[in-house]
Formats: sequence, structure tokens, C-alpha cells
Amino acid sequence: MVRICIDAMGGDYAPEAIVQGCLDAVRDDTSLALTLFGKEEAIMPFLQKAGAEKERICIVDCADVIENNEHPVQAVRRKKEASVVKALRALADGEGDGFVGAGSTGAVLAGATLIVKRIEGILRPALAPMLPTVTGTGVLLIDCGANVDCKPEWLAQFAVMGSVYMEKVRGTREPRVGILNNGAEEGKGNELVKNATPLIAQMPVHFTGNVEGRDITSGDVDVVVTDGFAGNVALKSIEGTAAMMTGMLKETLLSSFRSKMGALLIKPALSGFKKRMDYSEYGGAPLLGVNKPVVKAHGSSNAKAFYHAIHQCKQMVEGGVVPTIEAELAAVMKAEAK
Amino acid sequence: MVRICIDAMGGDYAPEAIVQGCLDAVRDDTSLALTLFGKEEAIMPFLQKAGAEKERICIVDCADVIENNEHPVQAVRRKKEASVVKALRALADGEGDGFVGAGSTGAVLAGATLIVKRIEGILRPALAPMLPTVTGTGVLLIDCGANVDCKPEWLAQFAVMGSVYMEKVRGTREPRVGILNNGAEEGKGNELVKNATPLIAQMPVHFTGNVEGRDITSGDVDVVVTDGFAGNVALKSIEGTAAMMTGMLKETLLSSFRSKMGALLIKPALSGFKKRMDYSEYGGAPLLGVNKPVVKAHGSSNAKAFYHAIHQCKQMVEGGVVPTIEAELAAVMKAEAK
Repeated sequence: MVRICIDAMGGDYAPEAIVQGCLDAVRDDTSLALTLFGKEEAIMPFLQKAGAEKERICIVDCADVIENNEHPVQAVRRKKEASVVKALRALADGEGDGFVGAGSTGAVLAGATLIVKRIEGILRPALAPMLPTVTGTGVLLIDCGANVDCKPEWLAQFAVMGSVYMEKVRGTREPRVGILNNGAEEGKGNELVKNATPLIAQMPVHFTGNVEGRDITSGDVDVVVTDGFAGNVALKSIEGTAAMMTGMLKETLLSSFRSKMGALLIKPALSGFKKRMDYSEYGGAPLLGVNKPVVKAHGSSNAKAFYHAIHQCKQMVEGGVVPTIEAELAAVMKAEAK
Repeated sequence: MVRICIDAMGGDYAPEAIVQGCLDAVRDDTSLALTLFGKEEAIMPFLQKAGAEKERICIVDCADVIENNEHPVQAVRRKKEASVVKALRALADGEGDGFVGAGSTGAVLAGATLIVKRIEGILRPALAPMLPTVTGTGVLLIDCGANVDCKPEWLAQFAVMGSVYMEKVRGTREPRVGILNNGAEEGKGNELVKNATPLIAQMPVHFTGNVEGRDITSGDVDVVVTDGFAGNVALKSIEGTAAMMTGMLKETLLSSFRSKMGALLIKPALSGFKKRMDYSEYGGAPLLGVNKPVVKAHGSSNAKAFYHAIHQCKQMVEGGVVPTIEAELAAVMKAEAK
């Protein structure tokens, strides 16, 4: 049985969508047990309709919730009764094997770092969402906002962590790891990239060199290493452009009677297109580098997205992502010490 | 008469597309005179078919060309006879009012900085392409690769230069200037952004605060200030996503007989959609901060894109972009000296 601690109060559609995602997850996977942390009276109504699957769901009542607008570190330190804090505490205490939450990113980062703590030797944990690629295999972008100012050594560790994740969770053999840069040619880059490149080249990963913004989603690499600032800019630029184009396309299709007729005809094909662009099947963003699997689901997660995030967290547990990162890192440090 | 110096040998489709763009430009605008720098024997064949408009086109024969794979600064210093070098030299000597080239970005940057030189007081020139927005007004992203490691004061100057450009060339009244950041909330940002924000707030621009990657193309701001690394990542992420989605959409529409029929019906509406996403009407990327208008046209420029880049350069001349930047900067420095 894999036991996952859930922040039932985090996310735009919590607790309803979260509880529904949890119910769907335990129904489809009998080796899954979930503990929902949150206000019992808010959660219960959405559990009542459920059948036998709810036997593998239990609730831990929490008096408090951390909101998006709060200062993460202060809130985590002060609000001991907050759902995200109690869930991460239970995880750290061994009462669960992983954590999934869709609430404040800052609170998940701060809570995981302060309570679950870093893997020994890891300099900084990193947030690493998957993005869809042309090839359909997906790409991991690490870091996307946990560390806005980075040192070269941190990026070298991100490369290792990202590679382990793709291998253990996505089943990618010898994941190709690139570094986000402002040009494909050698010698390009800001100071950080120039200094990180030789360090990544020494890591036990299949390093393929520079990746430009336009090639993140090409499918040519499986992991793109970057600092949290540039990664966040890239992630949101990609999301924003996709949303803009989808919106403009919709408008175009509804602009005349003729195009509406056409839209009806292409509808089945278009649903395949939408599916390929759908992030939610990849789950949320793993926070790599802490002692237990922690997944940050998207704030706008619906039941389906949260369902996938739970599945992803279970894969991280079963794939042994944390012990593998630990072992890889120990090997690197041993080699460096020589 | 506005006289523009053209690098006729730069770009993927040079010299044919460049010469054609030049011919179209002088045909449509009788107050335009162009000097084409390049290999005369390569250029002449494409001029021969032209009519009376070629009277306002002259050629300066250049023995050399700078290629994309050369080291820009070394190439500019060594190849005195290269088309881009001779064109920028003519510009600096007052034989032209502006420059347009579609060749190596590095060579245009290095050549403009070394030969045309920076406006007095400008710390670093910046490359500032326009991107399409949902609203159709376009947004200027400054810098996009001229300076990969930036200081806060440079970003403050980028804000002023970008605002002047939007006002003088795009006719935007009180351009809204934002800074690219990893979150919309105050207090977000890496060291550079945190230090640049208060400086930009003191500049004579309409500063509206943080812009996330997903909002660059929203039309909520007219200028997005950033360092050349993050700007390049954002620009290419947006371009790449747009290209990926267009490609996937095409594939979708051709995937079945039914969707092909639908595609025929939506074709007219789709052409409007394509037009809204078309960058080329904005011209190329101005290099702001040097003593004369310099426009870097896209390497893949066809005749139409180059035509628009020439028009854009002329607008920079007529709008007085360079003297206005000079005056704004002098006013800022005077205020700071008090």
C-alpha cells in the first residue's frame, strides 16, 4: 500500500475537486491509501456519496489554511494547524510515503524544505514541471521558480535530479539533458550558464548541450536545466502563448457561419489536438531534492489533474526517485573527493 | 528624402529577397533612397527587371561578407570590406540616415556599437523586437540578447528607450512599461529585477510593475523590460510554441477526410488568424541606444519582412527616436545630478 498525504484545502477548486480526484484515484488503484488534511466539515459532504473506495481515505481535521497571498516561510512557521503544514509534518514523521498539494507554491516549497528537509548533500531543491512536446514524450523543466538566483553547482545537481526523475517516473532510458541558453552555439550564455555547463558535463547524465527557448518543446531533450527565473519565464511564456493561440483559434472558428460549419467537421480531430497539448496527464510539478516525494499540483487543478498528480506521486514512491537521487549524489561526491 | 544603408548580403534569402524588398519599398515610398552594400555581381541580376524605382537605389560594391558562424567582434574588426561593416561605416559617416540588415545578429550588434557608437550616456544598446499581442497592438521586448548579463541601471535605460520607441514609431501614447518577473506580486524577482524595479520607477516612463511570462503577449503593457538572457528565452519560447501549435494544427486538419473538408470551410477565417500572428509587419528588431537608427531584420526575412523593416527604419528616422532618447537621457542625468 502506498500512502499519500493530501492537502485537501489547496487549489482554486478545493476541497471539492481535490476530494473528487482522491476518490477517483483510490477507486482506480487498490494499492493506494490517502490521508486528506483539511477542514473535516468542508471535506465530508464530498465524501458522503462515495462507495467502498472511501475506506482507503481518512481525514485529519486541520483548523487552518495557508492562502496564496501569505508570506510562505512566515505562514509555515506560524500556522502549525494549517492543512499543508500538518500534511508535510505527517510525511516527515513517516505517516505517509508522499505528498500532493495544489495550494500556494511558496507554502509547499517552504514547508517541504523546512519540514521534510533536503536530501543530504542537495544544495537546493528544485521545482520541475513537465511540458508537452511535439513528440508527445514530454520534457522536464528544472528549475521553474524555487530558486530565482542560482549558483552553477545547483544547476549541476538539477541535471542529476531531473535525469533520475525522467528515468524512474517516465521510464525514459538515458534521458537527454540540455541547458537552457540564448543560442545553440557553444560559447553562448550568461555567466551562470557558462560556469554551469562544464559542471553538468561532469555529472553522470547524458548531457547534450545548449537548448534554445524555441526547442524546449521540440522533444529533442528530456530534461532542460535552468535557473528558477529563466525557467519560470519560459514555462509561463509557453503556457501563455498556447492559451493565446487557443483563444484566438476559438474566436476564429466562431467568426462566421461558414467557419462554424467547418469547426463542426474538425471537432473530432481537434479533440486529439487538445489532448496532445493537455498538461494535466503529466500530473503536477515534483519538488526534487527533498527527503520524500512532494508534488505541487497546479493551482487550477480540476479532479482529473489532481488524479494524475496523485498517480505521479505514487510513481515517484515506487520508482524510488528519492533514494536514487541520494545514491547518485553520494557517488558524485565520492568521485569529487578523490 | 530618407536614405537607408542596406546590408544586401545578410539573411537566409540574400541577396534576392533583400533586393526585392528594397525595390518594393522604394516603389511604394517616393521619399526613400536606398544604398545596397554587397557584391555588385550578385545584386545586379535582381535589379535588372526593375523599372524607374531603381533610380533611388544605388549599389556600393563590397568584396566580403560576414557569416553567421564568425566571431562577431573579430570579424567586424578584421573584415573592413564586409557589406555590413561598410554599410554601418557609411551610416556613421553621415552618408545615410539609418541601417537595415538581416545578417548575423552578433555582427550587427558589434558593428553598430564599434562603428555607429552608443548615444552619449547610454550604458548598453539593446535589441528590442516587437511581438504580436492578443489585442493586435504589439509589445516591445527589450533586451532580447544584446546583453546576457545586465546591471540594474541598464534595465532602467532600456525602459526609457523602449518607451520612446513605442511612442515615436508605433504612436502609442504614454506607453505602459512593465518588467519581466517570475510572479505578478510585489517583492518577487531575482536580484537584478529587485534592484532594477525602483530605478525604473524613477524614470520618466509610465511604469506599471511586474509582467509574468504568460502576460507578455496579453496587450496589457506596451514595453517589457528584461535582461538579454531572459528576454531571449521568452522570445524564443513564444516563437517556438506558436510554431509548434501551428504545425500540430495543420497536422490535425489534414488527419482525416472529414477534417480536410472542415479545413476548407475555415480557411478564410484562418487566414485572418495567421495575419494576427504574423510578426513581419512589425519589421525587425531595432537596436536602441546607438547614434543612428539600426534595424536587425530576422535572418529568415523574405521580401515582405524586409520591406517592413525598411519602413520601420524610416519611421525611426522621421520619428526622431535617436534624438528623443538622447534628450530624455540628458534630462534624467540632469535630474540625478541635482
